[in-house]
Amino acid sequence: MKKFEISKNRRVRVTPYTSRLEKYGVGGYTVYNHMLLPTHFKSLEEEYFHLKKDVQLWDVSVQKQIEVTGTDSYKLVQLMTCRDLSSAKILKCYYVPLIDGNGNMINDPLILKVEDMKWRICIADSDVLLYAKGIADSMKLRVKIHETNISTLAVQGPKSFELMSKVFGENISKLKFFNFNYYKFGGVDFMISKSGFSKQGGYEIYIQDTASGHKLYDYIIKIGGEFNLKPGCPNAIERIEGALLSYGNDMDNNDNPFECGLDKYINLESNIEFLGKKALQKAKSEGIKRKLMGVKINDKNIYLTKEEKLFDDKQKTIGFLRSAVYSPRFKMIVGIAMINRDYCKVSQKFKINLNNKIISGSVCSLPIN
Amino acid sequence: MKKFEISKNRRVRVTPYTSRLEKYGVGGYTVYNHMLLPTHFKSLEEEYFHLKKDVQLWDVSVQKQIEVTGTDSYKLVQLMTCRDLSSAKILKCYYVPLIDGNGNMINDPLILKVEDMKWRICIADSDVLLYAKGIADSMKLRVKIHETNISTLAVQGPKSFELMSKVFGENISKLKFFNFNYYKFGGVDFMISKSGFSKQGGYEIYIQDTASGHKLYDYIIKIGGEFNLKPGCPNAIERIEGALLSYGNDMDNNDNPFECGLDKYINLESNIEFLGKKALQKAKSEGIKRKLMGVKINDKNIYLTKEEKLFDDKQKTIGFLRSAVYSPRFKMIVGIAMINRDYCKVSQKFKINLNNKIISGSVCSLPIN
Repeated sequence: MKKFEISKNRRVRVTPYTSRLEKYGVGGYTVYNHMLLPTHFKSLEEEYFHLKKDVQLWDVSVQKQIEVTGTDSYKLVQLMTCRDLSSAKILKCYYVPLIDGNGNMINDPLILKVEDMKWRICIADSDVLLYAKGIADSMKLRVKIHETNISTLAVQGPKSFELMSKVFGENISKLKFFNFNYYKFGGVDFMISKSGFSKQGGYEIYIQDTASGHKLYDYIIKIGGEFNLKPGCPNAIERIEGALLSYGNDMDNNDNPFECGLDKYINLESNIEFLGKKALQKAKSEGIKRKLMGVKINDKNIYLTKEEKLFDDKQKTIGFLRSAVYSPRFKMIVGIAMINRDYCKVSQKFKINLNNKIISGSVCSLPIN
Repeated sequence: MKKFEISKNRRVRVTPYTSRLEKYGVGGYTVYNHMLLPTHFKSLEEEYFHLKKDVQLWDVSVQKQIEVTGTDSYKLVQLMTCRDLSSAKILKCYYVPLIDGNGNMINDPLILKVEDMKWRICIADSDVLLYAKGIADSMKLRVKIHETNISTLAVQGPKSFELMSKVFGENISKLKFFNFNYYKFGGVDFMISKSGFSKQGGYEIYIQDTASGHKLYDYIIKIGGEFNLKPGCPNAIERIEGALLSYGNDMDNNDNPFECGLDKYINLESNIEFLGKKALQKAKSEGIKRKLMGVKINDKNIYLTKEEKLFDDKQKTIGFLRSAVYSPRFKMIVGIAMINRDYCKVSQKFKINLNNKIISGSVCSLPIN
């Protein structure tokens, strides 16, 4: 694929690790939360197999953290989500659909309750800070909202557990999925959660001090050899197969969380107050009209730049493909599509116009197995 | 500079003109409002001189338009800005600092009042939609807010007037600066404003129908030869010299509009209601502590990735450089910096650490002459 210069400036920020990534041969970038995110080093496919077998060190500093503190901090966080956070616990992580007053998605962050009255929202790619400020400014809430300078490194892959024990001590092996705690390296406390944007297991390390982060990064690279560790990044193939949704790709501000399959994070029976409650109650009573599903397409090359129509034998639209990639495991294209309700059936056939050819495919469940 | 693959997908959108830009040899990209914006074709310097002499056709579709309609649409737009829009007129454009409840900048769009109760906010790089929704959802305002599919082409440069008369008819030469109106090409009405992100004069064309936009783009390229028209894009050298501020570079959510030199768009004496009013009244009564100024630096190479400290002979910080580029006109680096109040003097000397060398420079006024 053609290469371009990509601007780096104050508006499109580098991370504290960008120069290291370039030393290790990063091959592509995207921009996420006004910051550079690598998309691959040498080969997406090689890195896919490596991630599933060994362990990778990712720079995911783009997962910016919006910190909300103050007397009304719970109230504000709750107003933005349909997930009941009234009994949220410190040291636990919560995957949360953030929704607007129309009940539509604005982001799908991990939320960490760091202390009483101190929440961190680890955001996908949209300016959640501005939605939170819009509410807080209007309602005169007693909160402070700011984007932290925290950078995030992820250690992902089946060998991440052994590697991280070696770096932070055996204690970290007791950390449970979607919990976080504090662990020492080089005399410095690091906040670490057992989480990450892959289905291969691993950790996310939240770093406040850049010098300590650099030491940690270089140490992990140095001792990583015995685990066949490589620098990596979220892998498009692995995340689509694993149905890790990407805000802006698979879903956007025109979709509600039912349509995104996030039903288990919607607590309409609870007496919590959130801005999209009436809209979601209405959506539920009316029944959803479409839903995100997996798809498999009988071809090898795809490069989506917008959603692509899927249609049946009678040219009737059955849905829209939103993310897609060639899967070396299935030896065909796999993707995530918003499918109209009547067609949300596993094995439902469809056609798609790809590179001026009509190609056939079928609907499948998510994750794609 | 090193080149990379840059991802194009639903989240980082192409524009209707991206394939044309690549055909004409675009050399670099940035991402702006989740969409690709070219940064140069062959040479930033050649394009700088060409823009000041002839005429260029720009794809600035990244200037996304947030449309606010409904009974409370004026109320909502006004709540976000310190500029008095109570007597805003249809067919006029308004450059507007958008601010939050702390009186700090969240964007600096051009606002067009398209009809009574129909406003379009042509945004810089932040999700203004989310701030507007946060307010509207909290206050239960009777508005609809959405991002339009409008794409924007700009025709910029001293020969733009003659060129545009040839395309849209002589009538367009009567359009005044920061006014807009509707002009026909190929039987289709195009909304056009006399505006643009350069100081060389020109127009912005707001395009709803992609096929008509393609016809217009290709026609302008075809007849542009006699004006020495070339495809171009906002030029970093020209915009810094001309003090066209870039949100995210020169200013961000930690700066108020006084500090950004936007005093003439702050109407504190008016009885309009906006969320940052108290904060700006306080800022005014306390006096500002710093201000955006121009700088000249005695060197040729700079590549800022974050703000850089400026200091005096005693190592005391006098401010921070936020945007900078080599200027072939001044034969040195020019930039925009946030300078502490006591040092906001033309010819104030400073030093900066660039590429591990201490370089000297001086403060100047904006625009840089």
